[in-house]
Amino acid sequence: MIIEITLQDLNPQKFIAEKVNEIKASAGDGVAINALSGGVDSSVVTMLGHRALGKQLRTVFIQNGLMRQGEAESVSAIFAKLGVNVEVIDAQNEFLYALKGITDPEEKREAITGTFYKKVFGRIVRESGARFLLQGTILTDIDETVAGIKRQHNVFAQLGIDPQEAFGYQILEPLVQLRKDGVRATGRALGLPEEMFNRIPFPGPALAARIIGEVTAEKLETVRKATSVVEKALCNRGAFQYMAILHQDRVTGMTNGKRDFGQQIEIRCWDSIDARTATPTNLPFEVLGRLANDIISEVPGIVSVTYNIATKPPSTIEAV
Amino acid sequence: MIIEITLQDLNPQKFIAEKVNEIKASAGDGVAINALSGGVDSSVVTMLGHRALGKQLRTVFIQNGLMRQGEAESVSAIFAKLGVNVEVIDAQNEFLYALKGITDPEEKREAITGTFYKKVFGRIVRESGARFLLQGTILTDIDETVAGIKRQHNVFAQLGIDPQEAFGYQILEPLVQLRKDGVRATGRALGLPEEMFNRIPFPGPALAARIIGEVTAEKLETVRKATSVVEKALCNRGAFQYMAILHQDRVTGMTNGKRDFGQQIEIRCWDSIDARTATPTNLPFEVLGRLANDIISEVPGIVSVTYNIATKPPSTIEAV
Repeated sequence: MIIEITLQDLNPQKFIAEKVNEIKASAGDGVAINALSGGVDSSVVTMLGHRALGKQLRTVFIQNGLMRQGEAESVSAIFAKLGVNVEVIDAQNEFLYALKGITDPEEKREAITGTFYKKVFGRIVRESGARFLLQGTILTDIDETVAGIKRQHNVFAQLGIDPQEAFGYQILEPLVQLRKDGVRATGRALGLPEEMFNRIPFPGPALAARIIGEVTAEKLETVRKATSVVEKALCNRGAFQYMAILHQDRVTGMTNGKRDFGQQIEIRCWDSIDARTATPTNLPFEVLGRLANDIISEVPGIVSVTYNIATKPPSTIEAV
Repeated sequence: MIIEITLQDLNPQKFIAEKVNEIKASAGDGVAINALSGGVDSSVVTMLGHRALGKQLRTVFIQNGLMRQGEAESVSAIFAKLGVNVEVIDAQNEFLYALKGITDPEEKREAITGTFYKKVFGRIVRESGARFLLQGTILTDIDETVAGIKRQHNVFAQLGIDPQEAFGYQILEPLVQLRKDGVRATGRALGLPEEMFNRIPFPGPALAARIIGEVTAEKLETVRKATSVVEKALCNRGAFQYMAILHQDRVTGMTNGKRDFGQQIEIRCWDSIDARTATPTNLPFEVLGRLANDIISEVPGIVSVTYNIATKPPSTIEAV
């Protein structure tokens, strides 16, 4: 039974001290490893682990080819400034190969999870000799897994899978009592720069979750560019999360006065406290119009742009 | 060479008198036939033909199963009040059969056009002995066909196909010098009721153009319901055209707290003068939110709703 620590009840400095001690006590003089994705949760866990274990902790960033533009470089640069060395592992081809031909969202997630854990990260962990894995699981992940809403690759324990047996290491989840707001407050107290601990959520399957249908290198490039335009345009709107989704459906458009089939980008921008429920952000219409024009002019192949106007529930935050 | 009559230059009563005379002169004492779809163009042509030919004109409404809810009934009721008898021909199964398995938009249009002309309407025309076909082609149809933007089933002559040879009758197109605004003014002058001559445009392939992917009876029912909700909600906003589009892409949603894949409706609402260019209507955000909620609660299977924010060009008004 996990006891929630709400933002109101959270004393970040006390929480950090306790978790640093717990991690130290668990790991002893063993080697620990963690995968940093650049998201809030894994960034906070990296800092906690670094405080607890210093050089006993090995932090890797797996470049799966599904991340934002320049993500590996900017994340490792930020952590370098904080004294944390991040190893970037290039595994783009392994992920693309695993995703080839897959259109079902569930199989897509499984291909990414399988490639990440069993193939890439599993190999690194086995070769490293690390026995302890630090993970950024938060309470919402567990809620949603239990409810069957979302498969979480990072909650084996809660799903009744023995991580010791499955992957040969012990999982430490210091953030499991917090929700996103608590994680952010902890990140702030850990000295993470604003841009890092206050980042909008990014899904585990990353841009693969923003592509409806098969994931290809070309579609990744398209949705990556659209994501960059959307994030730049909406970062100062105070929204909880915002994204570009590349649809598989083709829609009619005109290129040089001729009828042509093109691709559609759906923009979602959410107001939410903890992702459990969410409503579309009331963005000024001229902001939406400018954003649509920017996407069409900057992202090749896009002839149509929509804005999500449904709430969660019954929608979900991500489309895939 | 067709000489455009702009709204400014149009004298509706003079135009009507001229066209009535031209139709009389062309048809002589022959039988004419026209297919009334319920749209503005075919409604105006029906009235012009009725004035010119009276009982020499036979007007049929082909129920293709792709129209709005209750369309055949309401259209024939309106014309009955104006003294025009409309024959409703039930051909729903023929159209559904022709559309089976087709996902390509162009093939979809061809299946509908072929079924309409060669099968259903062709049969009626051949059996009727009519030699003259009245059609509501307008100037924009011809522009777009020439530009290759849209295949128009009603512009055989402009495409170099001899309609005499192709279908055994002569096509009369009294509205070919007008654009949509001129057609509306003519409809007003002909005494058509407001709800009829001032209707928003509806595409030739009807609801089949509002379904991305294969057209089935079930999807038609879904998009018909969504269309009804959208038209009811947006009819007083002064927009040029508004529609619901059923996507083929499945998106994640939640039903009873469980993850589930659902369907998405895209709403498009356009400001435009003549459909050549168009911009999305700046609808209040609460109107969009209410509309999304209404669609989700009234249309089974829908978990997500978007609003189009791209302009034409490069988008087109319809998606298929």
